[in-house]
Amino acid sequence: MEFDHAARRARLAVLLAGYAETPEESAEGPGLDALLVTDPVNVRYLTGLVSSNAAVLVRADGSAVLATDARYAEAARRRCPDVEVVEHRDTAGRLAELARGGRVGIEAHHMTVATYRRLGEWPVPTQGLVETVREVKDEAEIAALRTACEITDQAFADVIERIRPGMTEREIARALELRMIELGAEKPAFDSIVASGPNGSVPHHSPTDRPVARGDLLTMDFGARYAGYHADMTRTVAIGTVADWQRELYELVREAQRAGREAVRAGAVVHRVDAAARDVIAAAGHAERFEHGLGHGVGLAIHEEPFLAPDRHGSAGEPGTGRAGAVTDRRGECDREGCKLKDRVPITVEPGVYLPGVGGVRIEDTLVTRGDKPELLTRTTKELLVL
Amino acid sequence: MEFDHAARRARLAVLLAGYAETPEESAEGPGLDALLVTDPVNVRYLTGLVSSNAAVLVRADGSAVLATDARYAEAARRRCPDVEVVEHRDTAGRLAELARGGRVGIEAHHMTVATYRRLGEWPVPTQGLVETVREVKDEAEIAALRTACEITDQAFADVIERIRPGMTEREIARALELRMIELGAEKPAFDSIVASGPNGSVPHHSPTDRPVARGDLLTMDFGARYAGYHADMTRTVAIGTVADWQRELYELVREAQRAGREAVRAGAVVHRVDAAARDVIAAAGHAERFEHGLGHGVGLAIHEEPFLAPDRHGSAGEPGTGRAGAVTDRRGECDREGCKLKDRVPITVEPGVYLPGVGGVRIEDTLVTRGDKPELLTRTTKELLVL
Repeated sequence: MEFDHAARRARLAVLLAGYAETPEESAEGPGLDALLVTDPVNVRYLTGLVSSNAAVLVRADGSAVLATDARYAEAARRRCPDVEVVEHRDTAGRLAELARGGRVGIEAHHMTVATYRRLGEWPVPTQGLVETVREVKDEAEIAALRTACEITDQAFADVIERIRPGMTEREIARALELRMIELGAEKPAFDSIVASGPNGSVPHHSPTDRPVARGDLLTMDFGARYAGYHADMTRTVAIGTVADWQRELYELVREAQRAGREAVRAGAVVHRVDAAARDVIAAAGHAERFEHGLGHGVGLAIHEEPFLAPDRHGSAGEPGTGRAGAVTDRRGECDREGCKLKDRVPITVEPGVYLPGVGGVRIEDTLVTRGDKPELLTRTTKELLVL
Repeated sequence: MEFDHAARRARLAVLLAGYAETPEESAEGPGLDALLVTDPVNVRYLTGLVSSNAAVLVRADGSAVLATDARYAEAARRRCPDVEVVEHRDTAGRLAELARGGRVGIEAHHMTVATYRRLGEWPVPTQGLVETVREVKDEAEIAALRTACEITDQAFADVIERIRPGMTEREIARALELRMIELGAEKPAFDSIVASGPNGSVPHHSPTDRPVARGDLLTMDFGARYAGYHADMTRTVAIGTVADWQRELYELVREAQRAGREAVRAGAVVHRVDAAARDVIAAAGHAERFEHGLGHGVGLAIHEEPFLAPDRHGSAGEPGTGRAGAVTDRRGECDREGCKLKDRVPITVEPGVYLPGVGGVRIEDTLVTRGDKPELLTRTTKELLVL
């Protein structure tokens, strides 16, 4: 697939020109002369180059310099004919030197303390500038995601025919991943979660050698990566038979997921979308058992802006290491009500209820905002399947 | 597989007690009361927990506190019964608070500028402490690597039988990856490199839709991951026929690779191991065409300490983002001659020669230092195969 990297750099350049460090600075902030982009996902987004050691300097005038080492230099020149390529092992150091004297931003949510100290700590720490540009997808990106979701749906359909009591969680995960690759996925979008019976109460359970048994609920959370874009889908199925409490729990989560999806539209306030699903679960007395956000953006990363959560900013990231989720500067799209969903933003909607020692249910789709009515990208049925 | 995480934490605790910030400080440095470990690979190494949002505080007295969010808390308690578990979304923030008042290190080669600023920048930036502990493997780790390499060898043997002119690079990469998973790999250890004909001159080429043709050299660089441990092997084969220049180039790289392997022993000076292979290539006039280090450590990461390169410190890391390679503090093992290889350290030996516009050859094994004679883990023949 071909993507328009120059258009992406142009959108970033506009943000740089108007950059203001604090909300107090005027809308016409001092601006940045350039941004030193070091996150490999952002480097790929802006240039098309996939490399474990590359950085790109994007200037406010729209020009760019890409630095990478000898292993990738030839690929960089081929892949990015419209960008100046410099070959150097210390990619960030070389570009910072080139930009010295100007007002230059770094990606503070990606650059390590060690690298920043090595650079001399003179550039300006910024957060989430490229992530803001990445949030709204163009049609080529959505087409890649659509393909990734089609592969995911098909792999699910093919593998559930073979699931029998006695198959282990690990075997099911492997079968899903193999089938996705056979169907054309580059790779699984993330480590598949397959959780059976009581393991279903761990939202991010790693597959074990536990054999699935008649009477289990079985949750599968997986997806395909295609052209760099990540699908994400979860279905919970029943094995052999369904107890009343299982069907009740399933229908509750299904109702919550529907309410969440129906709240998704361009312009919707993010924390209200979360609330639409969460309120359904809370009304059933399980508020404490839905312990994560409703969903997240997907694209070149499996978790990206926006994050659908109960807080008003709609940009939770993954705190802690500060790596998995950039806390984007969203001033432009937030007001007193909260932050808003933009148009052409692919997100997941994935409520769950987790009962410790008993099990759990999660239902997740990937969809993309399209005006008032989102386009559903994962099309697998949400009827309770009894295998 | 079961690993002894408590023993690993105990080894780290010893390093913390003796920590000195600069070489000038006495061997009995001020020490650290604790290290806040945020790199997920290091968290896994020290606790067994696999999580995208977890951090562990290891104290110089050997005790530890593991923080993770609700998605992983139940798994953390099951997996790490001997470690205190706290449930919090802001894992690094919560642990820093717990440790406040003491002299606490952070992993400056992993923690982002944004997170460090959020913590208030009071902890001490350190580099490579856990990586130093990780470098020497115990027998359970080597057994996992051995299995990963066996899967890699077998997948290669199975797939080369099916390679024919007309198959694309991408198809070959997929076939290798599928076969490794069928053979029991968790996943490929990294994105496979399959480079045919002129593409062979790009050391880290991404597979394309180019069909391999009679007369091509074909380089395959791939490996299996098993129980978290990464195999890494490269072979270059010929398709259908071999020109004289191809055989000559192959034999040169093969001779360099043998010289490199034969220089590997516990106690060897790292840059001399690199030189043993590099000198062979230089003597043939191709010094400029072997543009990367000779090899790198493998373990829970695909690239880790030690880095075999021409520089005297033997710890190059991957400069730039500062993420892919921690620059380890190796004072203990270095002298005027340079840094030394330790015993039971798995490394790759992978010289290559790359001729722009023409093609290239690389031959790579994974092996582990064992006194004077390393154990070879990848066993595939290095005879030139003509498929």
